[in-house]
Amino acid sequence: MQLIGMLDSPYVRRCAIAGTLLGLRFEHHSVSVFRHMPRFATFNPLYKAPSLVADDGTVLMDSSLILQHFEDVAARSLRPVGAKARLHDLRMTGLGIVAADKAVAVEYERKRPEAMRSPDWSKRIEAQLHDALALIEAEPDFGEDTTTPGAVICAVAWGFVRYVIPTYVAQDAYPKVAAHAARCEASAHFKAWPIDRE
Amino acid sequence: MQLIGMLDSPYVRRCAIAGTLLGLRFEHHSVSVFRHMPRFATFNPLYKAPSLVADDGTVLMDSSLILQHFEDVAARSLRPVGAKARLHDLRMTGLGIVAADKAVAVEYERKRPEAMRSPDWSKRIEAQLHDALALIEAEPDFGEDTTTPGAVICAVAWGFVRYVIPTYVAQDAYPKVAAHAARCEASAHFKAWPIDRE
Repeated sequence: MQLIGMLDSPYVRRCAIAGTLLGLRFEHHSVSVFRHMPRFATFNPLYKAPSLVADDGTVLMDSSLILQHFEDVAARSLRPVGAKARLHDLRMTGLGIVAADKAVAVEYERKRPEAMRSPDWSKRIEAQLHDALALIEAEPDFGEDTTTPGAVICAVAWGFVRYVIPTYVAQDAYPKVAAHAARCEASAHFKAWPIDRE
Repeated sequence: MQLIGMLDSPYVRRCAIAGTLLGLRFEHHSVSVFRHMPRFATFNPLYKAPSLVADDGTVLMDSSLILQHFEDVAARSLRPVGAKARLHDLRMTGLGIVAADKAVAVEYERKRPEAMRSPDWSKRIEAQLHDALALIEAEPDFGEDTTTPGAVICAVAWGFVRYVIPTYVAQDAYPKVAAHAARCEASAHFKAWPIDRE
């Protein structure tokens, strides 16, 4: 399998980390959907990161779907066992995805020529980003877990925020989120896929 | 359970259809993330549609995660059986999600004050929308299937395109996609959740 996309994308990074946790063998190609468009198109003409080239050549996209395929191939799941734990992990995964989505939206808005930025839209997505981080902060601790889908996406979303748009969210604004992310970043499966590798 | 969001969202609609296919009991509340913000906030202050209020009050978001919870509750999956069919359905689901994402992005760009629209961004997302639809068109037929995640999202994405941004994609531009969507719209589980219900 081949995973395509830059590790500064929280979605590429969550897939790489999940693949490693599941013990899968795959190649990673650091290709940007903006700076390397011709090369990206050889994998996926939709310029969607992450893309996964499966063993039979089928090209998948969307990180949650790539995780499903990884779990199919590994014949095991990273989701916790037990109805309550599974529901809670879906809750945390959703919050992490919203935090990551809104952080990416903030970055995209910032990349526009200044005259084409919308103050109303910026205000909305920046509030959503902060509100998502505040809801993660308010949830019960992850404890030591650094491996479930919820634990991973919340940590990589925080990593993206602090690496790509650090002026929008202070390091000490959400101390439980930051502590969880630091614990994750210290694990072998996160260290294998650092955000600033390329 | 309570599903929150307007059916003109392809993601709300895919969840409602999946819930019906799985035989689940849930209420649906048509609440807009733009026009009904105070009411939406009573369910989810992140204004993310769809949101799902689980039976224990936990609020989930992201349609793919809501589908996972629905499958947990129903103790069965809408995904096909067999490695090849599962991979193909993930492929179609990814294409449908990209088509829907880009159609929503086109609509959001169109909603901006004219001076704040970006021609470069519009060109990029409109091309991605058409390229995603072209890739769905180029795939092997869904046959009669109107129930797998891939079949459903491709059909609701087409419904959104033709209902919300019809001037961007002609009805006859992707005849196999349109025929698949028409077959889905004729099914009982789609008719239960029409896009223009509200």
